[in-house]
Amino acid sequence: MTIEASAARLGGGRIRLGMVGGGEGAFIGAVHRIAARLDDRFTLVAGALSSTAEKAQRSGAALGLDPERVYDDFATMARDEAARPDGIQVVAIVTPNHMHYPAAKAFLDAGIHVICDKPLTATFDEAKALAAAVRASGRLFVLTHNYTGYPMIRQAREMIAAGALGPLRYVQSEYIQDWLTEAAEATGSKQAEWRTDPGRSGAGGAIGDIGTHAFNMLSFVTGLRLESVLADLTSFVPGRRLDDSVEVLLRFEGGAKGMLWASQIAVGHENSQSLRVYGTKGGLEWHQEQPNELWFTRFGEPKQLLTRNGAGAGPANRRVSRVPPGHPEGYLEGFATLYSEAAAAIEAASSNQAVDPAVTYPTIEDGLAGMTFIAACVQSSAEGGRWTTVEQV
Amino acid sequence: MTIEASAARLGGGRIRLGMVGGGEGAFIGAVHRIAARLDDRFTLVAGALSSTAEKAQRSGAALGLDPERVYDDFATMARDEAARPDGIQVVAIVTPNHMHYPAAKAFLDAGIHVICDKPLTATFDEAKALAAAVRASGRLFVLTHNYTGYPMIRQAREMIAAGALGPLRYVQSEYIQDWLTEAAEATGSKQAEWRTDPGRSGAGGAIGDIGTHAFNMLSFVTGLRLESVLADLTSFVPGRRLDDSVEVLLRFEGGAKGMLWASQIAVGHENSQSLRVYGTKGGLEWHQEQPNELWFTRFGEPKQLLTRNGAGAGPANRRVSRVPPGHPEGYLEGFATLYSEAAAAIEAASSNQAVDPAVTYPTIEDGLAGMTFIAACVQSSAEGGRWTTVEQV
Amino acid sequence: MTIEASAARLGGGRIRLGMVGGGEGAFIGAVHRIAARLDDRFTLVAGALSSTAEKAQRSGAALGLDPERVYDDFATMARDEAARPDGIQVVAIVTPNHMHYPAAKAFLDAGIHVICDKPLTATFDEAKALAAAVRASGRLFVLTHNYTGYPMIRQAREMIAAGALGPLRYVQSEYIQDWLTEAAEATGSKQAEWRTDPGRSGAGGAIGDIGTHAFNMLSFVTGLRLESVLADLTSFVPGRRLDDSVEVLLRFEGGAKGMLWASQIAVGHENSQSLRVYGTKGGLEWHQEQPNELWFTRFGEPKQLLTRNGAGAGPANRRVSRVPPGHPEGYLEGFATLYSEAAAAIEAASSNQAVDPAVTYPTIEDGLAGMTFIAACVQSSAEGGRWTTVEQV
Amino acid sequence: MTIEASAARLGGGRIRLGMVGGGEGAFIGAVHRIAARLDDRFTLVAGALSSTAEKAQRSGAALGLDPERVYDDFATMARDEAARPDGIQVVAIVTPNHMHYPAAKAFLDAGIHVICDKPLTATFDEAKALAAAVRASGRLFVLTHNYTGYPMIRQAREMIAAGALGPLRYVQSEYIQDWLTEAAEATGSKQAEWRTDPGRSGAGGAIGDIGTHAFNMLSFVTGLRLESVLADLTSFVPGRRLDDSVEVLLRFEGGAKGMLWASQIAVGHENSQSLRVYGTKGGLEWHQEQPNELWFTRFGEPKQLLTRNGAGAGPANRRVSRVPPGHPEGYLEGFATLYSEAAAAIEAASSNQAVDPAVTYPTIEDGLAGMTFIAACVQSSAEGGRWTTVEQV
Repeated sequence: MTIEASAARLGGGRIRLGMVGGGEGAFIGAVHRIAARLDDRFTLVAGALSSTAEKAQRSGAALGLDPERVYDDFATMARDEAARPDGIQVVAIVTPNHMHYPAAKAFLDAGIHVICDKPLTATFDEAKALAAAVRASGRLFVLTHNYTGYPMIRQAREMIAAGALGPLRYVQSEYIQDWLTEAAEATGSKQAEWRTDPGRSGAGGAIGDIGTHAFNMLSFVTGLRLESVLADLTSFVPGRRLDDSVEVLLRFEGGAKGMLWASQIAVGHENSQSLRVYGTKGGLEWHQEQPNELWFTRFGEPKQLLTRNGAGAGPANRRVSRVPPGHPEGYLEGFATLYSEAAAAIEAASSNQAVDPAVTYPTIEDGLAGMTFIAACVQSSAEGGRWTTVEQV
Repeated sequence: MTIEASAARLGGGRIRLGMVGGGEGAFIGAVHRIAARLDDRFTLVAGALSSTAEKAQRSGAALGLDPERVYDDFATMARDEAARPDGIQVVAIVTPNHMHYPAAKAFLDAGIHVICDKPLTATFDEAKALAAAVRASGRLFVLTHNYTGYPMIRQAREMIAAGALGPLRYVQSEYIQDWLTEAAEATGSKQAEWRTDPGRSGAGGAIGDIGTHAFNMLSFVTGLRLESVLADLTSFVPGRRLDDSVEVLLRFEGGAKGMLWASQIAVGHENSQSLRVYGTKGGLEWHQEQPNELWFTRFGEPKQLLTRNGAGAGPANRRVSRVPPGHPEGYLEGFATLYSEAAAAIEAASSNQAVDPAVTYPTIEDGLAGMTFIAACVQSSAEGGRWTTVEQV
Repeated sequence: MTIEASAARLGGGRIRLGMVGGGEGAFIGAVHRIAARLDDRFTLVAGALSSTAEKAQRSGAALGLDPERVYDDFATMARDEAARPDGIQVVAIVTPNHMHYPAAKAFLDAGIHVICDKPLTATFDEAKALAAAVRASGRLFVLTHNYTGYPMIRQAREMIAAGALGPLRYVQSEYIQDWLTEAAEATGSKQAEWRTDPGRSGAGGAIGDIGTHAFNMLSFVTGLRLESVLADLTSFVPGRRLDDSVEVLLRFEGGAKGMLWASQIAVGHENSQSLRVYGTKGGLEWHQEQPNELWFTRFGEPKQLLTRNGAGAGPANRRVSRVPPGHPEGYLEGFATLYSEAAAAIEAASSNQAVDPAVTYPTIEDGLAGMTFIAACVQSSAEGGRWTTVEQV
Repeated sequence: MTIEASAARLGGGRIRLGMVGGGEGAFIGAVHRIAARLDDRFTLVAGALSSTAEKAQRSGAALGLDPERVYDDFATMARDEAARPDGIQVVAIVTPNHMHYPAAKAFLDAGIHVICDKPLTATFDEAKALAAAVRASGRLFVLTHNYTGYPMIRQAREMIAAGALGPLRYVQSEYIQDWLTEAAEATGSKQAEWRTDPGRSGAGGAIGDIGTHAFNMLSFVTGLRLESVLADLTSFVPGRRLDDSVEVLLRFEGGAKGMLWASQIAVGHENSQSLRVYGTKGGLEWHQEQPNELWFTRFGEPKQLLTRNGAGAGPANRRVSRVPPGHPEGYLEGFATLYSEAAAAIEAASSNQAVDPAVTYPTIEDGLAGMTFIAACVQSSAEGGRWTTVEQV
């Protein structure tokens, strides 16, 4: 996915994209729009950007949308867009969690591909229903666990799959922040409000918001399948209704073990996700805040600093790098890579061709795995911290 | 320039952009296109993408341009676009250096704003002629010294202007790479070929390609005005026709001093630009490969790690940040910031309004300053390393 | 404890030191000897350096000891040294764990102070018996959890005690290495042999060898009292008889929680101990391999990098620093600080004076706490991972 | 020089050491004493610790010296110690620079080996006279450019000598601090007083105090021989009589070039010495404040992080490491290594044996080279910044 290749792919025209959520004041919707634009594979043409009609219109106007294609609700949008000859080919769902299921279902039922923010849904039942809907629809479903779009994460996955670490023994995945150290939900932060509200987020707070990222990350990189968890969820901030700190012990099929730590009250950490993986022959370490670097050690040899698109970069790393090494790519580029992979898959689907096997965006299966993970953690913690088998779905 | 604000600005429609250079196989043209897209302020509608007609057409097609607006040469493009009611408002010039002057002049003369890659021109004479052309045209001229778009660089500039370091004493600016350690120009690298060719690059190799970035960076951040230089330019690689390593001693008006080091043969450095500034009361340190961080020390106090959009971020930092702290922004985002500032200036010019004083993209004056710097360094070195007064232009 | 003060203290003469263990081929004995020498408060005059008579003699000769005071066994040494007018005042016990109890008891019973390596003993029963012996003897007992001697660890403890972090919520303590990634105990490493042998190490492998360091570290810095643990101990290397990887969930009195991770199979980590502590108002982070730095963040303010003896250093930090900031002190210096604090305590005891309250070496109580921690972890893990109350002793 | 070996060497007894300077309130004297003690090869038995008789006596008493061997002046000490059968074998000279020459000469003339702090002398003439005295005496002369004692510096030297970097092209050596940012010499700092006093320091301020370290470091590691310099010395602090900031362009025999930067007014740097070396095949980077690490890159391969005594450590690195990797050694250990190498050389000299060729402490030749460097820099700067040939001595 060099820049040149990116340009070359454009011959087929841009994919028509709609958006649900992401109106004024939203954070992640704007991120999705940049991600969709960055490699120039999409054009945003329709939206149900807010559940408030006036705000929906205003947001649509600000984005330059045709007023006719600015909808007050997603159901109308799904129906009308499906009926247009120039209707959207794919919709991005960027609402709070509790809206993911109904919105996604509406578009899938209308035959429209879906790109959806994480976690998959607010409840495990919804997740299973959504999985069924995806399968029934035959449409594509892309879950934006964006951190898997980083080139060094692709490199890590490729190395492990190739056996560079030997059989894996231990995985440590953490994602710590400090933005919920105080009761931000009580002092006007809209982001904090819905993320700490069980009605909109589901049963998990930190575990759902960032713990699922950490879990998806370790699963994506290692390929390990989770067998059971032992979790401890805590709400440290008085009055908070969902967990803001969680640690989970992990057991994988085949004997590997691991640990996951997520916290939103770890003062001094802005968005500190990291992953460490150890096998019989080697180890890897990665930190999201320095995403262009990956530490690799073969047992008994000096540590190596692998870089994005640099010396030692493998095909999976180079494929999703846009600029030369030493020119940092970041969060938006990683996010954009998922969009570009979605584009590749949509184009392949549209032309009844097989998608390039190198395309590896998170799917409904990853979303389901994340929801089983949340469910098992919540249950384990509620039972006082017991080993809990993860439901295989 | 929060994401939300970026969306809101779009009411006025996108600015029509053309491009000269940047066809197949080019690196920086693709970067400019991403930068133009990222904040959705521009739409690319025309180009003279290559000096080879066939390649120009193929490149235009790959970018989805209207074939009628894919030109074989820039002169025709300037004339024809100026004549169209929907003609381009601004052109991006992303050719090798020796084409900057004639291309920029053609568009300025046609009344079209110019965004131009650095260094300004291949020769000092061209630079002066171009400056005259800009002034005569009344059009905007934006020079893409992209590293000044980084939020932490904006923060550094703001802090120094506010006196956080006290009167400045010493500046160390370096930009070191290793990609020209071997004779890449002899083994098929097109990037290496033109950058080591005096006919296309001008009299400076490393000094022009990256030394000007390092000089622009220190000037932008400190506001110091250069008085004289003592430079030593070296070509370490046998057969190379331009310098691949340069060190410069710097003297500024008012008594501050400094040092600039640029190298393309520093093995182990991908794109390691850094800036260190010391005053009577404080010091700053920044590294391009970790662009979201800025070290700040008040004399006698603990070192602080300032971050993009994080705690301690000032208005200039926040203004050009798109996402929350801890979500790394990188090279493309910094580049995009210059494009968005160009957009703001073009819109202001179009409506005869004053541009927001916070807009601080590099201009023709910065380009001229860079060319006087190159000229003085080349002269100083040619004379065996003597203090050489920098021409004030 | 500036260097100057260190010199000044010497007027009273050096303390006579003996050593049990630490003969040829031992690692930690040599470390103790350097630590004892560094601040010039001790002189080594006697030893039972090996359980093999010939090796004991040879080791004693190599150290320049009077042959008369080179003993074949610790019991004789304790008896004879106690009887000499110039007999040792304190003994350093640096044997494998299973010898700590009998040796320490012999010297305590003979009225001689004891400095003992960690963990306290091989079994919990021995630990309780040793505690009784210490109390009965009225002699000093210093446990060399050497990492608590680092200046930045003293600073962290001082800051937390002063409330700089507010009430504590969460502590993450980890200690990971890779030296036991393969079965080194089967290929001739004496260090690996005894450390993986339950007969010499006790019931804990990694948990005893390095987990106790991590636990002591968090206790020393935070002052939190452990209430219960949930542990998972694993032997990843086939044939290994003790754990080489352990994770522990921690609950403290008053509601704080934490996590401890120790591993000897984490490829790429030489000796990577780290501590992270979060309270309602601030956070701290420290890494043993960069011991002269401590990260401190007040919630909502920029991160600060505190340094050994540098700007922002508090009294506890300065007191145990020997050289100016920027001149790294390391492992041996931290170890030496415990010896110098032992010297201060011995001198105070000898003159019936109160010891400086700033002296804070680990004592028998810390050793007991470490043994209750090991016991609870081993039990919790043996029971399949259950919350296990830590015995208060 | 493992710990075990260190112990084994002690059979021959400790070397009798005297000290000139280093009384109460001195910094570097105490460092030398720790360095001498650390590996247990020396015993301090005599001193002329201060030029004030009362202070000399008090300092001697504090160090536990026999009052008979506490001298009021170095001349008496040299004479009397030479006459004693148990007289000192070597003297450490740790006075301000202007005393180095007369003191060293007195002991050399008395047949006593000399360990001397840097820079060699206050003036170039003294340096040449001292060199003559050393040669005439047949005694050993050890100059404590302590930073060359670091294991990673030994590793760097060994790698370059073995051709790991190919022929060298460029060297960047810097040593920056901030402790003289303000006029500390006017507010009671004794360290600042003599170091900024031409009468006691000589013609160089920063260039002599730390610039010589930076120069010695690059010479030691690269083996390059300096041909000419172009220097700019500045006193930024009003009223200061010696330079507090210096930059030097360097040309070496054979065509390599380099740059040296020393500053005592670089706010935010405690003691930041670093070295970067680039050849045709590889590059190295080292930072004194993280002394246990060395970055190494073979052109076109991933960067490696070499460590003290770790994987990839060569013989020269392992030889001067005391403890396993990951257990940081620091400034005092590096200093101690020079003392231990002095011990090895003294023992070899005493027994008319050849010293181990691995012993590589700085000698009178290195001291002379440092003085020619200072002299050439001072002259170059005084002449306005001209290329100045370095005198070959």
